Amino acid sequence: MEHSEVNSHCRIVVDAMGGDFAPQNAVLGALQAASMDTSIELFLVGRKNEILDVINKNNLHFDDSHIIHADEVITMSDSPVLALKTKPNSSIVVGAKLVREKKADAFVSAGNTGAMMSASTLIIGRIPGVGRPTIGTIMPAETGICTIFDVGASVDSKPNHLLEYAVMGSIFVREIYGIKDPKVGLLSVGEEDSKGNKVTASAFKMLKKTKLNFVGNIEGRDILKGKVNVVVCDGFVGNILLKFAESFVGLLKSKIKAFAYKGLINKIRVLLMKGTLKMVMKEFDYQSYGGVPLLGVNGISIIGHGSSSVLAIKNMVLRAKEMYDKNLTNKIEESLKEYANISE
Amino acid sequence: MEHSEVNSHCRIVVDAMGGDFAPQNAVLGALQAASMDTSIELFLVGRKNEILDVINKNNLHFDDSHIIHADEVITMSDSPVLALKTKPNSSIVVGAKLVREKKADAFVSAGNTGAMMSASTLIIGRIPGVGRPTIGTIMPAETGICTIFDVGASVDSKPNHLLEYAVMGSIFVREIYGIKDPKVGLLSVGEEDSKGNKVTASAFKMLKKTKLNFVGNIEGRDILKGKVNVVVCDGFVGNILLKFAESFVGLLKSKIKAFAYKGLINKIRVLLMKGTLKMVMKEFDYQSYGGVPLLGVNGISIIGHGSSSVLAIKNMVLRAKEMYDKNLTNKIEESLKEYANISE
Repeated sequence: MEHSEVNSHCRIVVDAMGGDFAPQNAVLGALQAASMDTSIELFLVGRKNEILDVINKNNLHFDDSHIIHADEVITMSDSPVLALKTKPNSSIVVGAKLVREKKADAFVSAGNTGAMMSASTLIIGRIPGVGRPTIGTIMPAETGICTIFDVGASVDSKPNHLLEYAVMGSIFVREIYGIKDPKVGLLSVGEEDSKGNKVTASAFKMLKKTKLNFVGNIEGRDILKGKVNVVVCDGFVGNILLKFAESFVGLLKSKIKAFAYKGLINKIRVLLMKGTLKMVMKEFDYQSYGGVPLLGVNGISIIGHGSSSVLAIKNMVLRAKEMYDKNLTNKIEESLKEYANISE
Repeated sequence: MEHSEVNSHCRIVVDAMGGDFAPQNAVLGALQAASMDTSIELFLVGRKNEILDVINKNNLHFDDSHIIHADEVITMSDSPVLALKTKPNSSIVVGAKLVREKKADAFVSAGNTGAMMSASTLIIGRIPGVGRPTIGTIMPAETGICTIFDVGASVDSKPNHLLEYAVMGSIFVREIYGIKDPKVGLLSVGEEDSKGNKVTASAFKMLKKTKLNFVGNIEGRDILKGKVNVVVCDGFVGNILLKFAESFVGLLKSKIKAFAYKGLINKIRVLLMKGTLKMVMKEFDYQSYGGVPLLGVNGISIIGHGSSSVLAIKNMVLRAKEMYDKNLTNKIEESLKEYANISE
């Protein structure tokens, strides 16, 4: 996996069947990314005829030998772990295998999130030293970049897993967003050192012993303020938070709509502010960030929303390339070696 | 504690020293509530001279014998459990003792939340059958009433504690909001029965065995949609969610402000929509709901935000009266007896 840190040749597999608008959005987004960065060697995995349909209809050109046929599709309603067994010829399984066999460096999919996580963890495998891979998200903070690790890769995390999330999240934020010494906060119910549950109390003591820029416990209200760059929490908490945040914009829209229905003057008011609100709320649109990285697997894995747009897919592919250029996988392995013997 | 269900005589103690604007807001709010409902027998606990100052300055009248002098004040920065010991003459300790000694039926405070929780649990004591009291909050859902139990009374809840929260929350929503058979949801990371962590998996099985209107697991995105009336979760998760939600409006305001600074046209746009947004965002103002109930203590205990307004304090006192009228404490005790032997 040796490669220089800038613009190295990178083989990226995109799941053409992944997402609600597949293969259309997946194929178009992937090809757009590849045309922007010629050091990307793109592979499309999925039903060959459907992929060719999209390419031909859009008058695009793509090397036939880079379409990897996979007959089956894991749907959004399939049970993740079960689907890996019952659909061995699915695009997700075939794509993950390409990375495991070192025939590709990165895998990108907007398909079934659980199946992508399972395939990445079970087929691609974990980086040595990683107990549990973690999936992160980006929050629109008042100041700077705020990420949360974990938002759903695993629940019932142990203290050492929280430590791993902190290490992997810090490396991600440092390498991808160029923040030199990312601030790390442990999500808890109070700022005092003693606040938290049993798991965070232990994790707190372990984090104190690292070289990370650990600022201590943070509260729910500190996330959007951008108090830290990396929020560390169990996937149970992070997943609930993420889904709650996503629904907030929905509620705001419905409240504004209800307000508009209350009379003509209200309606005019809402019409006047519609454009403004749209622009402001765009930042809350988690879609636009395109995919979230699954860190800790021995290769690059990017998982997107089912409703990913062409732009979102393109961003996911470019993000995968960036993670490859920055050599994230090796950096995580090296860093975790340092903390292998930390205990409370 | 026998009393009829409507408009019975109720002795309510208000912590005159509680909150950032004490004694001013606490005294004025309490007196307003008492003047609205003459079946309230009001007691004010705190520094007598400071309380009298507020009463005199506002040309109000209040029975001197109903001012209970308490020399000490537990501040917002005091450590809750420690403060109960080091400040035995504080308004919170003296107020809680009045309820324990059956000299009062309810205690209302906008003071140190942790100290109020500790005083209520340790001094007033728990209802027989309650392992852990729970503090709830109200969310502005798209449809109907949505409450969350627990939002911070306890972390590391066991499955049977989650069951208690569900029972107590259901009774609260039924009695106070008149929802006949409140829908209860267990907050988790997926809707399927099997999704969750170890504790929710056990709690799920227990909840299935109750007569509660248990709809199963719900996700973070279901809260604001109002999918259920009672969201059940560990206090660690609930507290983080609550504080996160409160900060959302803050972020929205700051984003809109930043947008306005980008040019004159943006500024005009924001000015045009300011009033509208204010009205819409009012619903997100958790302040206006006034205080949250601590359920499971053997008496009524209402805890308010430190920044409680006069209106918020008034609402808290009226809420305490309502909880007394509806005989909530006894109803919780009766209901929990039914589920005392439920296991997984």
